[in-house]
Amino acid sequence: MLVDAFWSEVLGTGVLLLVGIAVNANIALPRTKGHGDDWVLTSLGWGLAVFTAVYVAFRSGAHLNPAVTLGMLVAGHPFVTTDAGTIAPSAGAALVYVAGQLVGAVAGATLAWLAFKKHFDLPTEGRVKLDVFATGPALRSYPWNLVTEVIGTFVLVTWVLFQDRTPAEIGPLAVALVVVAIGAGLGGPTGYAINPARDLGPRIAHAVLPIPGKRGSDWGYAWVPVVGPAIGATLAGLLAVAWL
Amino acid sequence: MLVDAFWSEVLGTGVLLLVGIAVNANIALPRTKGHGDDWVLTSLGWGLAVFTAVYVAFRSGAHLNPAVTLGMLVAGHPFVTTDAGTIAPSAGAALVYVAGQLVGAVAGATLAWLAFKKHFDLPTEGRVKLDVFATGPALRSYPWNLVTEVIGTFVLVTWVLFQDRTPAEIGPLAVALVVVAIGAGLGGPTGYAINPARDLGPRIAHAVLPIPGKRGSDWGYAWVPVVGPAIGATLAGLLAVAWL
Amino acid sequence: MLVDAFWSEVLGTGVLLLVGIAVNANIALPRTKGHGDDWVLTSLGWGLAVFTAVYVAFRSGAHLNPAVTLGMLVAGHPFVTTDAGTIAPSAGAALVYVAGQLVGAVAGATLAWLAFKKHFDLPTEGRVKLDVFATGPALRSYPWNLVTEVIGTFVLVTWVLFQDRTPAEIGPLAVALVVVAIGAGLGGPTGYAINPARDLGPRIAHAVLPIPGKRGSDWGYAWVPVVGPAIGATLAGLLAVAWL
Amino acid sequence: MLVDAFWSEVLGTGVLLLVGIAVNANIALPRTKGHGDDWVLTSLGWGLAVFTAVYVAFRSGAHLNPAVTLGMLVAGHPFVTTDAGTIAPSAGAALVYVAGQLVGAVAGATLAWLAFKKHFDLPTEGRVKLDVFATGPALRSYPWNLVTEVIGTFVLVTWVLFQDRTPAEIGPLAVALVVVAIGAGLGGPTGYAINPARDLGPRIAHAVLPIPGKRGSDWGYAWVPVVGPAIGATLAGLLAVAWL
Repeated sequence: MLVDAFWSEVLGTGVLLLVGIAVNANIALPRTKGHGDDWVLTSLGWGLAVFTAVYVAFRSGAHLNPAVTLGMLVAGHPFVTTDAGTIAPSAGAALVYVAGQLVGAVAGATLAWLAFKKHFDLPTEGRVKLDVFATGPALRSYPWNLVTEVIGTFVLVTWVLFQDRTPAEIGPLAVALVVVAIGAGLGGPTGYAINPARDLGPRIAHAVLPIPGKRGSDWGYAWVPVVGPAIGATLAGLLAVAWL
Repeated sequence: MLVDAFWSEVLGTGVLLLVGIAVNANIALPRTKGHGDDWVLTSLGWGLAVFTAVYVAFRSGAHLNPAVTLGMLVAGHPFVTTDAGTIAPSAGAALVYVAGQLVGAVAGATLAWLAFKKHFDLPTEGRVKLDVFATGPALRSYPWNLVTEVIGTFVLVTWVLFQDRTPAEIGPLAVALVVVAIGAGLGGPTGYAINPARDLGPRIAHAVLPIPGKRGSDWGYAWVPVVGPAIGATLAGLLAVAWL
Repeated sequence: MLVDAFWSEVLGTGVLLLVGIAVNANIALPRTKGHGDDWVLTSLGWGLAVFTAVYVAFRSGAHLNPAVTLGMLVAGHPFVTTDAGTIAPSAGAALVYVAGQLVGAVAGATLAWLAFKKHFDLPTEGRVKLDVFATGPALRSYPWNLVTEVIGTFVLVTWVLFQDRTPAEIGPLAVALVVVAIGAGLGGPTGYAINPARDLGPRIAHAVLPIPGKRGSDWGYAWVPVVGPAIGATLAGLLAVAWL
Repeated sequence: MLVDAFWSEVLGTGVLLLVGIAVNANIALPRTKGHGDDWVLTSLGWGLAVFTAVYVAFRSGAHLNPAVTLGMLVAGHPFVTTDAGTIAPSAGAALVYVAGQLVGAVAGATLAWLAFKKHFDLPTEGRVKLDVFATGPALRSYPWNLVTEVIGTFVLVTWVLFQDRTPAEIGPLAVALVVVAIGAGLGGPTGYAINPARDLGPRIAHAVLPIPGKRGSDWGYAWVPVVGPAIGATLAGLLAVAWL
C-alpha cells in the first residue's frame, strides 16, 4: 500500500508542479498570452494547482508537500485512510512520501517546460528562466528569508492539522484557498515555497534540462525553502499536539 | 434517450461558448467595458462559463467537450446516469455527443457575436476578430503547439476521470476551477482549446458569419486543437484504466 | 406571508445594490482606494454582492430581480417554499416581489451614495457619476443593446430554472458565480443590467439625490434594461416549460 | 471553557491579521513580488485571510471581530456551541472574546512585520508603512468615515446573524466571500476595518515595533474604526431581533 502512496504522490505532485510552473511561465516568459500578468494570477493559479492535484493523489491523502508530511508525523496524524487501510505516521513512510513528492515535482516541472518549450527557447534574462522554476528572495537575506518561509509554512500546516474540526463540504477547495491566502500576502518576500518539493524539484529540473541561455540554479539559496518549511511544519505539529 | 443527450449537449455547449466567447470579445474588441483586461479575467471567465454550462446540460452528464467524451470512452466510464437510465460508453453514443457539442459550439459563438455585434462592426485588426472566436498559438510551431494541447487536455481529462474518488459537495464548481487552473498557466502558449468543439465550433462560426473586416479563419492551425486534445484524452483514459 | 416576502425582497435587493453600487463607486469615483481597478473587480464584486444578498432575503426565496420573478411566473415555479408555506406563482405575487425589489434597489443605492458621500462630492465628469448608479451602453444602439440584455438575462434565468437538477451543496454561491460569468463577458457592451431593478432603482436614486455636478439620468436608455431582461426571462421560462 | 475561547480567538485573530497584513505589505512595501498590485488582491486576500482564520478558531466559534461578538450579544445568539458546551451571550464573555481578539491582532501583525522585515527596513514614505498596519480614510472626514464603517459593518454582521437560515455546506467560505464583497466596494473610502480589532491591534503594533522611518500612528483616526463597527453591529443586532 505504501507503493500506491508513492505513485499517488508522484502523480499528484506532478500535476501540482506542472500546473504551478506553467502559471509562472505564462506570466514571466516572453510572448505568452498571460505575459506580464499580476500577483492575483500567481496566487490564484498556484492555489488551483493544489486544488487539481489533490484530487489526483487520492490514494495517498494528497500530502504533495514534505512539510505536510512532517507536520503530520510530528502531530501523530495518520497519513491517509482509504478502503485499502490506514498508513500510520512513521519516519519510513514519511521518506516514501517525500521521495514520491520529489520525483513528481521534477517530472511536473519537466512537463511544464515541454508545454512552454518555444517560449523557453526565446532569449531572455537567465534570472527570469530560473524564477519560473525555483523560488527566490526579493531581498536576499538568508536569516530573514528563512523567517518568512517558517511563518508561511506554519500557517499552512497549522491549518491542515486543525481543519477537520470545522464542518464544510468543499473538499480540496479549502486547502487550495488557504494556499491562495498565503500566497497573496506572505508570498511577497520569497515567492512562498512553503513546500520543499515545490522548490527543490523544479530547481533540479532547471539544472538538468537543456534550457538555452539559462544561468546557474542558485544552489546557495536552495536550503532556505527546505529548512524553513521544515521548521514551520514542526512548530505547527507541536501546536497541534498542545491544542487539539 | 440519446436524443435528449444530443440536445442537452447542444444547450450546454451553447452556453459554454456563448459565455466564453463573450469573455474573449469583452477583452479584445474595441470600446467594450472590459477592453484590455488581463489573463485573470480570461481564465476565470472561461472556468465560470464551464460552471454555468454544466448545470444546463444535466440530461447528458455535461461532457461539453469531445475530449471528455473520448476519455470516458477509453476508460469505459458510463457517459451519464440519470433517472431515465444510463448511457453506456460506445463509439455511436460518442458521435452523438460530439455532434451535439459541435452544433452547440457554433450556436453559442453566434449568439456571442450577436451580443457584441456593434463592437465586431468597428474597424480593428482581422487577427483580433479571429482570436475572439478561435484559439491560436502565441508562437507558431505545430509540433510544440500540439504538445501543449496534449498536456493541458491530459490534465483536464485525468482530473475528470479521477475526481469521484475524492469527497466534496461542490458539484460543477470543481471542474470549473480545474479549467481556471489549466487556463491560468497552460493556456499561455496556445490559448488552451483543450476541447475540439471549443475551437472548431467558433472557427466555423467565424468563417460563416458576416463579420466586417475579418480575414481568413486560419484553417492551417485548426487540426492542432482537435488532434492534441484527442491524444491527451486518450492518454488520460489509459492512465485511468491502469490506476483506478 | 406575501408581506414578509415584500420586506425580504427589500432587504435582499437593498444589500445587493448597496454592495454592487459600492463596487462601481470604488472603481470609478476619484481618490477611492480601488480607483481605476479593472473588470475582474467589477464582475467579481457584483457576483459576490448577489451572494451576500441571497442570504439576507431568505424569506422570499431571494429573487432580487424582476427577471427572475418573471421567469418563474412563465415557468410556473413556486416563488418560494419556507416553513411558513409556499407562495405560488401569480401576477399579483409577482407585483409584490417587483415592488419590493424596486424599493430595495433605491434604498441600497442611496446607502452606497452615503458610504461614498465625500467622493461623490468631488468634481468629476457627470457621466462618471451616472455610471456608478445606472448601466449604459458602450456603443449606443437601442436594438443591439436590447439584444445584449436579452441574451445575458436568458443565460441567467435559464440557469436559475435549470439549476436544481444538478446536485451541489454550495447554496447561493452557485448563482453568484453565474453572475460573475455573465458579467465577465456579456457585461462588455451594456454593463449587464440583466435585472430591471438593478438599473431602474439606482437610476431613480441618481435622479433624486443631491449629487453635486450630476447631469441627466439618461432616461432615454432606461427602457432597454427593463425590456431586454423581460424578453430574456420570458424566453428562458418558455425553454424551461419545453425542456424540464 | 471561556479560557479556551480566549486562546482560540487569539489564535484565529492572529492568523487573520498575519495573513491580512501580509497582503497589505506585499502590495505596498517596496520590492516585494506583489508590489503595486490592485484592489482585487486586497479584497480577495483579506477575505481568504478570514477563511483561513475561521478554521483555526474552532473552539470559540471564530468571531475574530469585536463587532461580530457585539452583534451576537445584542441579538442574543450563543457565542459558540461545541462538544464542550455552549457559551451564552453575556457582557463578561464578550470582554473575554474581545481581549483575545486584540491580543491576537497585535501578535498577528507582529508576525507579518517579521515576515516582511527587510522590506520594512527599506526607506519609503512613513504613510505607506502605517497603511500596511492600520486603516485610514482616503478623504479625511470623521463623520462620513464613520458612516462608511457603520454601513460596511452593518452588512457584515447582518449577514452573520441571518446566514444560518439558508442551506449551504461551504462552511467558512461563505463569510470569507462576504468579506470579499464588502471589501471590493465599501472598502473604497476607508479601507474597511469593519472590525475594531483588525484596526486597533495592528495600530498598536505599529506604535510599538521598531520600524525604521515610521511616523505617528494616526491615533486621531483610531476611534472611527472602533465606534463605526460598534454602531453597525448594534444596528444589525437590532434588525436580527426584529426580523428573525
